Amino acid sequence: MGPEGSYSEKAAKLWVQKNMLDGAEIHYFADIEDAFLAVVQGKSDFSVIPIENSIEGSVGVTLDLLLENGAEIIGEIVVKIEHCLLSKGEPEKIRVILSHPQGLAQCRHFLKTNFPEAELRSTGSTSHAARLAGEFEEMAAIASPEAAECYGLKVLLSNVQDRKENYTRFIVLRASETNRVQQVSFIAENKSDNVKSYSSSEQESGHEFYPESKIEPDNSSLSACKTSIIVYLEKDRPGALYEILGAFAKSRINLTRIESRPSKKELGDYYFYIDFEGRASDPLIKNALKEIKNKIHTLKILGSYPAFKKP
Amino acid sequence: MGPEGSYSEKAAKLWVQKNMLDGAEIHYFADIEDAFLAVVQGKSDFSVIPIENSIEGSVGVTLDLLLENGAEIIGEIVVKIEHCLLSKGEPEKIRVILSHPQGLAQCRHFLKTNFPEAELRSTGSTSHAARLAGEFEEMAAIASPEAAECYGLKVLLSNVQDRKENYTRFIVLRASETNRVQQVSFIAENKSDNVKSYSSSEQESGHEFYPESKIEPDNSSLSACKTSIIVYLEKDRPGALYEILGAFAKSRINLTRIESRPSKKELGDYYFYIDFEGRASDPLIKNALKEIKNKIHTLKILGSYPAFKKP
Repeated sequence: MGPEGSYSEKAAKLWVQKNMLDGAEIHYFADIEDAFLAVVQGKSDFSVIPIENSIEGSVGVTLDLLLENGAEIIGEIVVKIEHCLLSKGEPEKIRVILSHPQGLAQCRHFLKTNFPEAELRSTGSTSHAARLAGEFEEMAAIASPEAAECYGLKVLLSNVQDRKENYTRFIVLRASETNRVQQVSFIAENKSDNVKSYSSSEQESGHEFYPESKIEPDNSSLSACKTSIIVYLEKDRPGALYEILGAFAKSRINLTRIESRPSKKELGDYYFYIDFEGRASDPLIKNALKEIKNKIHTLKILGSYPAFKKP
Repeated sequence: MGPEGSYSEKAAKLWVQKNMLDGAEIHYFADIEDAFLAVVQGKSDFSVIPIENSIEGSVGVTLDLLLENGAEIIGEIVVKIEHCLLSKGEPEKIRVILSHPQGLAQCRHFLKTNFPEAELRSTGSTSHAARLAGEFEEMAAIASPEAAECYGLKVLLSNVQDRKENYTRFIVLRASETNRVQQVSFIAENKSDNVKSYSSSEQESGHEFYPESKIEPDNSSLSACKTSIIVYLEKDRPGALYEILGAFAKSRINLTRIESRPSKKELGDYYFYIDFEGRASDPLIKNALKEIKNKIHTLKILGSYPAFKKP
C-alpha cells in the first residue's frame, strides 16, 4: 500500500531484509484491495497487507479478500505504529484531518478530545493522507514520521494513538498455486531472480510448497511456524465450533487467534478465521484438519508460514 | 445517534413501539460514544446503539464501550439497512461522499467502482452525513431514504450497499445497577412513567433484575432470551477458550455469537464477546457461568434480554 511513507512499506522493507531479497522492487498500490489483488493478478510476486492492529483489531477488508481470492499467506511481519499529527500549518488552524479508517479509529479519543469539530476524511492509506495534507495548511494527516519527511510536513504531535503501545501485524501473500501456474509466463519475464521458480515436488496440496528461494519457513520447532485457516460451520450446528476447538485441544495444538467475520448471507452467520502454531504438513496437524473437515461445511487453508520474531 | 433520519432512530422508534413506551422522548447524540455514555451519565434512561452489521461485522467502538462502562443490555433490535446515495446535485458532479465509517465500508465496492476519485468523509452518523451533504451540490451522503426526506436531498441511487441483504443489530442499554442507584433522583424527575421504578427483589446480582415496566423479557422459553458476556482468559492458557465452550456445550446452551476484540495491552491478546440463548438467572446457565468463572481471569455479564423477533 502506497504511496511512499506507509506502514505497509515499512513492513515490506522489513520482510525483504529478513529474507535477504536484496534485488526486490517495491510497487505501490492505492489501497488494501489493490495491493491484495496485485498478487492474485500477477502484478506483483508478493503483497504485504495489514490484517490486525493491537488497538482497533481486525482489518475487515483483508479478511474478506482472503476468503474470496486465491492467495497464500507465506509470512507475517509486525510493525510498531507511531501515529503522528502531521501538517504544513499550525495546530489551531486545522479544520480537516485525513487518514486510513484504521488510523482514524486508533486515534478516536485523541481526535474527539482535541479536534471535536474537525472534518475526518478517509484515505486508502496513511501515506496517501500525508500526501494530500501537504496541499493545504488547514489539513492534517494521521501518519508515520517517515510520511512527514516524504511530503514535507511538520510533526505537530507524536504518538497520538489512544494507547501508546500500538502494533500492526501484516501478512505476506503470494498467489495460490492455481493462480501461479497461470502466471508462469509473466513471472519468467520478471526481474526478481529469487522468486522465479517454484518447487513442484509437493504439489499434492496447493498450500504446502514453497518457492525455491530463501523464503523457507523455519522448521526448527512447531511454535516457530503458524498456520491460518478459515472454517465455515454448518448452519444450526451450535456445537460445531466447540468440536473444532476440541480437535486442536486433543492434539495440544496451540491456537493463537480466533476471529469471526460475517458470511454476508444473513445476520448471525459467520466464518471463523483461526491461527494456530505448526505447519499444515505436520502429521499431527494434518490429522486434526482431517478430523475438522468432517465436522464443517468449508475449510480453507490460507497457508503455513514462519511466526514473526522480533528482529 | 442523531441527528434525525439515522438508522439508530429507526431502531429506537421500533423499540419504543414494541414495548409500548408511548410517552418516551427521543434524544439525539453526535456519535456512538456520546449515545452510549448518555445512559451511563444519566442523560437518558435507555440508549440504542449499533453493535453488528451483516456485511461489515462488529462495531468496534461499541464492543470497547461495553467493556469499559457500566451499562446493561436489556434489548436488541434488528433494522434492515437500505443505503442510498443522496445529494442535492447531479451524480456526475459528486466530488465528496460522506457517511459513517460503517456506511462507507458497507458500500466499499460500490464507491470504488463508481466514484474512485471521490473524497470520502467520515461522520458520526449517516444522518449527520445527509445533513452536511445538503450544504453543497458536489457532496453526497450514504444514508437512509428517510434522511433524504429530512434534509431535502434527492435519492440518486437506492440500495447501494455491496450486498442487497443488509441488516444492523442494535442493542438497547440502560445504566447498570450501581450507576442507576446514583441516578435515582434524576430518574425520579423524569417524565417517562414506565421506567421510573426498579424492582429490588433480585438485587443479588447486578445483572439479573428488570424495571417494573413493560420491558419484561419473554420468559416462555430459553431460546426467546439471550445473554451477552465478555470473558478474558488467562494469558498463555490456549485451551481455555475450548474449556469455556465446553461448559456451554455440556449444558446444551446454544451460542449465537463469539467475537474477539483486542485487549489493547499487546498484539495477540483478546477479550471474547459471547452471546448465547437463555437468561443468566436460569439455573442451567448459572451453573455454566459458575464453572466458567473458575477457568478465566474476568467474566462480565452484559445482560439478559429478549431475542429479537421479526415484527
